[in-house]
Amino acid sequence: MSDAPSMNGAQALAQTLLAGGIDVCFANPGTSEMHFVAALDANPRIRCVLGLAEGVVTGMADGYARMAQRPAATLLHLGPGLANGLANLHNARKARSPVVNVVGDHAGFHAGFETPLASDAEGFARPVSHWVGRAADAASVSVTAAQAIAEAQACPGRIATLLLPADAAWGEVPAAARRIVSPPAARPGAAPDAHALARAVAALRSGEPTLLFLGSPALRTGPLEAAGRLATHCGCTVANALSTARIARGAGRVPVSRLPYPPAPARAMLAGFAHVIAIGTPAPVSFFGYPGQDSVLTAPGCDVIELGYEVDAAAALDALVGATGAGAAAVAAEPHRPPALPADGPLSARLANQAVAALLPRDAIVVDEAITSIEGFLEASAGAAPHDMLRTTGGAIGIGPPLAAGAAIAAPDRKVVALQADGSAMYTLQALWTQARENLDVLTVIYANRAYRILEGELRAVGAAAPGQSARKMLSLDAPALDWVSLARGMGVEAVRADTVAGFIDGLRAGLRRRGPFLIEAII
Amino acid sequence: MSDAPSMNGAQALAQTLLAGGIDVCFANPGTSEMHFVAALDANPRIRCVLGLAEGVVTGMADGYARMAQRPAATLLHLGPGLANGLANLHNARKARSPVVNVVGDHAGFHAGFETPLASDAEGFARPVSHWVGRAADAASVSVTAAQAIAEAQACPGRIATLLLPADAAWGEVPAAARRIVSPPAARPGAAPDAHALARAVAALRSGEPTLLFLGSPALRTGPLEAAGRLATHCGCTVANALSTARIARGAGRVPVSRLPYPPAPARAMLAGFAHVIAIGTPAPVSFFGYPGQDSVLTAPGCDVIELGYEVDAAAALDALVGATGAGAAAVAAEPHRPPALPADGPLSARLANQAVAALLPRDAIVVDEAITSIEGFLEASAGAAPHDMLRTTGGAIGIGPPLAAGAAIAAPDRKVVALQADGSAMYTLQALWTQARENLDVLTVIYANRAYRILEGELRAVGAAAPGQSARKMLSLDAPALDWVSLARGMGVEAVRADTVAGFIDGLRAGLRRRGPFLIEAII
Repeated sequence: MSDAPSMNGAQALAQTLLAGGIDVCFANPGTSEMHFVAALDANPRIRCVLGLAEGVVTGMADGYARMAQRPAATLLHLGPGLANGLANLHNARKARSPVVNVVGDHAGFHAGFETPLASDAEGFARPVSHWVGRAADAASVSVTAAQAIAEAQACPGRIATLLLPADAAWGEVPAAARRIVSPPAARPGAAPDAHALARAVAALRSGEPTLLFLGSPALRTGPLEAAGRLATHCGCTVANALSTARIARGAGRVPVSRLPYPPAPARAMLAGFAHVIAIGTPAPVSFFGYPGQDSVLTAPGCDVIELGYEVDAAAALDALVGATGAGAAAVAAEPHRPPALPADGPLSARLANQAVAALLPRDAIVVDEAITSIEGFLEASAGAAPHDMLRTTGGAIGIGPPLAAGAAIAAPDRKVVALQADGSAMYTLQALWTQARENLDVLTVIYANRAYRILEGELRAVGAAAPGQSARKMLSLDAPALDWVSLARGMGVEAVRADTVAGFIDGLRAGLRRRGPFLIEAII
Repeated sequence: MSDAPSMNGAQALAQTLLAGGIDVCFANPGTSEMHFVAALDANPRIRCVLGLAEGVVTGMADGYARMAQRPAATLLHLGPGLANGLANLHNARKARSPVVNVVGDHAGFHAGFETPLASDAEGFARPVSHWVGRAADAASVSVTAAQAIAEAQACPGRIATLLLPADAAWGEVPAAARRIVSPPAARPGAAPDAHALARAVAALRSGEPTLLFLGSPALRTGPLEAAGRLATHCGCTVANALSTARIARGAGRVPVSRLPYPPAPARAMLAGFAHVIAIGTPAPVSFFGYPGQDSVLTAPGCDVIELGYEVDAAAALDALVGATGAGAAAVAAEPHRPPALPADGPLSARLANQAVAALLPRDAIVVDEAITSIEGFLEASAGAAPHDMLRTTGGAIGIGPPLAAGAAIAAPDRKVVALQADGSAMYTLQALWTQARENLDVLTVIYANRAYRILEGELRAVGAAAPGQSARKMLSLDAPALDWVSLARGMGVEAVRADTVAGFIDGLRAGLRRRGPFLIEAII
């Protein structure tokens, strides 16, 4: 009989999250998670953010992790709740975002029955999780949760999924086990392979055309500066992978060109390089496979050097700088040269993007899920105010609206500008409600082309003649046209529609002036 | 060199679907499915219905199967597209709905690369699928697809998932393999176990209180009449499981009472029976497990007889009728006694449900995802015009709007009345757009209580004191209130709001009069 206050498994979990530095929980709970909800209630240092669909919950956790550089928790209801969040966990996995999923499960004694919600939750979790664990009972909740947090923080970021059976949550932690386990410190990334590093140094010293091909961990300000020194000192070119979780861009930053999406221009870009050094990303491969085409985009005979995904990208770049003697080289940073505001006229994606780049506030976070409508933005914003850009990483569309919300929660002092295709936005439009409820500083531009425009091109590419009725029905989003002003208002977000450049600029200024969510439907 | 026209794997798949009687494809395609989209275009007998999120696609397939009693196909984009559809496939699995999922995958030569969309598609599929297969190449597409169709149609209905690599879709079928395989006829259900059947007959003859506890396959008109004869002849009671895919109700049908959701009244209802005979469903078990409570709801010592899930439920009931000599017994059908229209006053869920029951058109399909707001409807509609009622089967919320759309496509001459909770509707509100595009005859009532009301009760049940700030934030949907009239209009569905009984009845009449989608936001 201990005098210590009682503690159940759910309370132990909440306190372990706090001990591990996790103080945001994106949630869509159900009955089996009610004890954890009560525990969160008793630990108000954990901020709880509700998403009205689980794809919103997991997408917010991804956006949060990309900006905070530490994990949030998610709270999901059993296997089906997890299932709804899987596609954006796939994106988070590809982004190497650290996420700790807490998934409720039936009490052990209930699990064997064929009940409506009985499902294989581990089976759902495994394809997107680097680590899956289950709290066996209340006594082991803290140690298992600490392990989940440690796994999530392994370099460069992992998905850890903790299954919490209801009886482990409501069960009393025995007095002897009533200790909150502090997760071990985040493991640093591995050192790059010495042989690969030596090959990279030789390539950089060769004087031959060499490309530094960088993934997200190498695209933060610090590692990018190292890449900039290498560019100056060794004459190499710096490019980034198509699907980058986060990249520092704009005035004062090292200019980086992006590998094009279509295979033909990507091959053309890569053809000129004798050496390609990939850091924090695999070597360049096409997004999809196409008939009669090689997936590898580098030319035959190109010397491809992969320094690896799991390594500490910053340390790898520092090592290259040291070995090549580039430490004193100057960085050729982008000058501040925002584009002019476009003149009035009918709106197009390109003109809208020019206006966004012209008015982009300093330290904005640009979320790009504009798909085909991103045209012209990269060029127009190269010398815009410094900003971070977040993109879809796993090709699962519907990441934009929750990514913007999560980023806004992680960086409340920065404006989030979400450039968003209409088709993709429809997957997770519920995120607008969370943006309204939490008064998140997100300005969303919906590019309303009313089609899966990218697929129209792909259909042509497979040699199909003019699309017939079935294809048109599957690729177009008109009839009826989506009315994004109504959709946004329905979720409490003020919105305007623009079909002229002047109208769009007015909307942009209105959205940038306020602090809170706003949406512009750009008819293009 | 054959003279036969060329055929690729995608065309073979489309023709195999038609050979198997599948002529509806619910779709959300992507790049890797473009050859199949082209093949669908060339086979206009297959009706293609676009859903703007995959949960809509799979939920429509479930609703279609429940009404058509045969499978539709779904078309999903790679592992992440399948992932988005998993929760409603979980529901379809629990409903025993036949569904054939066609999931595109990367071309074989592309699959080994760490690309954005690379994922474990089989891993995603397995927890919800009774069968998972992969077309190895173009030559084997037809035989593999025929197997998928046969598996889906195994009694009482299964989920079959066919992975279609892009190169199997675009690859040319060799002339020698250019044969469309017709799926074998649907396998009939197994005969019930003779020993269990004998126990059931003994129970029915015992004169002791006996409950016929029926799942969906036993709740269609035919088997229900058999149950009605048994009730008359043997004096047994007829009840249905909580989560039923489809039940025939209303005037002229055999009255069936439903097992209550909360464990206490469910136990009380079951306590009076010496024998419980479960047909087409497991024996009664509580939805969730609760601290200190047994999950089994029948009283200790109750004689529980399970005739099984996979058996032909109609044949099992016929066998019981034959063995007990109930064949000539009359059926005590429900008389036609629709409730009166409620008098005007402030609206409540109970009054709204009374009005719906009063005005329910003959042969309506009632989709119930009203959760707590269904109160009073079952009683009020017991003697309403004859109708079928579809409910959530797997506890994954967000099935209602797509279920209604799929049912409307399967039964275009019947009015669909969808009774829908606001919290659940938000998961798949994109289904409203498909309802508008296809002009589906669906009248949706959104019960806007602006809360996860059922969870408020569950939180109290776990002994939490008054909910604090975090719990309130996770259980309430106000601040901002969802505006369903705007949301519906944003997707092309006309809508009205009602907060009085008279206003609600006006809306109901307007919605029933038209042929096409309409939505009433009922403020309760």
